[in-house]
Amino acid sequence: MKIAKFGGSSLATWEQIEKVFQIVVSDKERKIIVVSAPGKRYPDDIKITDLLITCGRKSINGEDYSIEYSQIIERYSEIANGLCLSSDIIDEISLNIEGALSSSKENHAKYMDAVMACGEDNCARLVANYFQMKEIDAEYINPKDGGLFVTNEPGHAQVLPKSYLLLHELRNKKGIVIFPGFFGYSEDGDIVTFSRSGSDITGSVIANGVKASLYENFTDVDAVYSVNPSIIQEPKEIKELTYREMRELSYAGFNVFHDEALIPAFQAGIPVNIKNTNNPTAPGTVIVKERKLTNGPLVGVASDNGFCSIYISKYLMNREVGFGRKILQILEDFHISYEHQPSGIDDISIVIRQNQLTSTIENQIINRIQDELHVDHVVIERDLALIMLVGEGMRHNVGTTARASKALANASINIEMINQGSSEVSMMFGVKASDEKKAVQVIYEEFFPKVSSK
Amino acid sequence: MKIAKFGGSSLATWEQIEKVFQIVVSDKERKIIVVSAPGKRYPDDIKITDLLITCGRKSINGEDYSIEYSQIIERYSEIANGLCLSSDIIDEISLNIEGALSSSKENHAKYMDAVMACGEDNCARLVANYFQMKEIDAEYINPKDGGLFVTNEPGHAQVLPKSYLLLHELRNKKGIVIFPGFFGYSEDGDIVTFSRSGSDITGSVIANGVKASLYENFTDVDAVYSVNPSIIQEPKEIKELTYREMRELSYAGFNVFHDEALIPAFQAGIPVNIKNTNNPTAPGTVIVKERKLTNGPLVGVASDNGFCSIYISKYLMNREVGFGRKILQILEDFHISYEHQPSGIDDISIVIRQNQLTSTIENQIINRIQDELHVDHVVIERDLALIMLVGEGMRHNVGTTARASKALANASINIEMINQGSSEVSMMFGVKASDEKKAVQVIYEEFFPKVSSK
Repeated sequence: MKIAKFGGSSLATWEQIEKVFQIVVSDKERKIIVVSAPGKRYPDDIKITDLLITCGRKSINGEDYSIEYSQIIERYSEIANGLCLSSDIIDEISLNIEGALSSSKENHAKYMDAVMACGEDNCARLVANYFQMKEIDAEYINPKDGGLFVTNEPGHAQVLPKSYLLLHELRNKKGIVIFPGFFGYSEDGDIVTFSRSGSDITGSVIANGVKASLYENFTDVDAVYSVNPSIIQEPKEIKELTYREMRELSYAGFNVFHDEALIPAFQAGIPVNIKNTNNPTAPGTVIVKERKLTNGPLVGVASDNGFCSIYISKYLMNREVGFGRKILQILEDFHISYEHQPSGIDDISIVIRQNQLTSTIENQIINRIQDELHVDHVVIERDLALIMLVGEGMRHNVGTTARASKALANASINIEMINQGSSEVSMMFGVKASDEKKAVQVIYEEFFPKVSSK
Repeated sequence: MKIAKFGGSSLATWEQIEKVFQIVVSDKERKIIVVSAPGKRYPDDIKITDLLITCGRKSINGEDYSIEYSQIIERYSEIANGLCLSSDIIDEISLNIEGALSSSKENHAKYMDAVMACGEDNCARLVANYFQMKEIDAEYINPKDGGLFVTNEPGHAQVLPKSYLLLHELRNKKGIVIFPGFFGYSEDGDIVTFSRSGSDITGSVIANGVKASLYENFTDVDAVYSVNPSIIQEPKEIKELTYREMRELSYAGFNVFHDEALIPAFQAGIPVNIKNTNNPTAPGTVIVKERKLTNGPLVGVASDNGFCSIYISKYLMNREVGFGRKILQILEDFHISYEHQPSGIDDISIVIRQNQLTSTIENQIINRIQDELHVDHVVIERDLALIMLVGEGMRHNVGTTARASKALANASINIEMINQGSSEVSMMFGVKASDEKKAVQVIYEEFFPKVSSK
């Protein structure tokens, strides 16, 4: 049994939904279909979820939201008409969305979750309706009936363990199940959403629950690329990578797959296949537990910027038990999470995402570090980029560091920091943000030489 | 005005003390002399301080210590006879040591400090006596009279700020001051020692107090070497290095100069000259605030072993604010200090000196990490060595990492971890302890090629 999840671009128009239909019926193993809300039809288009958010906010403020509401209904109608569905389904969808918009606004977060969830929920109703019209045994299943129960944390729902057992029952459905992504129900019966793009999570949780043989994640790219295509033209496609590799890549800017969504599949050892709705015969990228190490130490190079480093020095720092812990406590008091902390003997740098530092918080942190820790220096260095080299083959490949640092040196790029040694599958180089693209280029060229591509 | 401190090997025999005398009188600027206790005369010899420790311990246990006591008096007598001093000085020394040994044993630590301090104290008396016999205007000054007041922490005394002002008065002494190293007095009038080899601290504190132009530290080597001579034959001598470089080198096994002792000199900007009592015309090594960058990025390569790494992994670790802080809190609860903590996205390694981990403590720590932090894995990897590359020139020298990691790769040495980016003057490579010597060799050969030596 396979779970197939389709993203917003795969459901943006009736033509796309027709492709989804063809994909699903072409493989009898595809028994459970998880759908996102209809996405953008063209770059400047507005996603249905974003229209719903505007409606919800306006409704809370007592403003008129009829224009956005009409746009939503129009989107669904356009799809229904294209698929030659009867108008009943649009009546059903309108009723559902009006119900959500007129529900209690007492708790704003809870209200917004109920409104936002309409995007996926009604898309699932619509897709199920189309399958039925095509005389396929298919059924819309609401997450409450399916058994997807979550914690009561609006926008950040966590799956409750009992859901896996309940969802297991979906195995017994004779026909195809069409399940809306992105949300579940609290034990009190309220709709609660996952974080944005959370439909990936729904698919992964169901895959775990029914012990699927494969979790297919349909999107609009042929594969996960080994590097950002906006930096390297026609980069190598990744055929296979491990959960750990995917996680490290997605940390540094690879947004193909929601990282929280990997957990349920990872825990059940279910492979995840990233595929293209627009080119379904392409094999895509498979995320697995273990893979054969071919093609050198690296599977990909990622990068991200917007980091800064808080540099602290104090003579004989390393004699002070508790020094590092006190610094982290100060950051925690400001709810600041840190990424790395390279350290010397008498100095330590804390790398954080710099959007966490307003100038007020920055001053308060510097003052507390000076007052409480009596340091010699504390300086903030801004605009750093982190370059991540990712690959299971790295750990036992003597010389990866040498090749990478040589490539950077040849390009006259100074290495601001290196973090290597904890993760077995990644190595991080910190460089100035202005060197980010060049650094990615030269490292990619070193490890993915042109001759070997394809 | 210069401060000259002489170490134990420079005072081990009367012939050595004669050399000290010649050195001091050859430069009128050498006005304050700090002495250690007489050290070893030959490799299997016992230092006077160690004999005193045995006496003190036996005395506390009510055991007979007459053999060791006689050995101590014999050592001083041998020196006094060699220098043709009158027997009065040995009577004075005997009286002083007996006084310490028969003082109150109520507080063992305090008692041991009083006994141990006799080594330096009586060496100073003896040296002063010799200078006087040679008709040099010289005077033994006791730390209490000189104004060296310290905290009441036996074996770990910290200098009290008021000492610097009091010691400043030593400038006004007409003759040469002979000052015992290693101890000061608490405000209650008790003798309290610095940590072992603390005479370096005494010299540095006095240098700061009198605002000396130079602090000369006489030992038994011509210079600080750029690498451990037991690993590389005839290594390059360092002519000049900065306080920061010295500190980083001494962290990883360069025991030339007590690292706490650098602080007072560093704070007053006083250069420290490491010289050889047995070859006083050699220029030695000068530790300064700033130096010209010549001879490439590195000034030295150091290494130390006996480290282990606590590896902890947890999926989505980097989303948990406070995770790193909680780990450090657990270590702190066991009074364990850590050296470095390289981190990945979902994993962190804490590098600590493995002598801190008994198997009981290890189990307790692992249990607490598992129970309190719900981690996926926690594993301890033992027997790591840290290789430190040190040099002020490193920071702005693109390619140092590449050269070092290439040298390691060519020697088939796997890099277990890298810590670079906080310290401006050092870079650390972690390797297996079995690779330590080879790693130091190949890095030294890369940065200090034979042709350029001398």
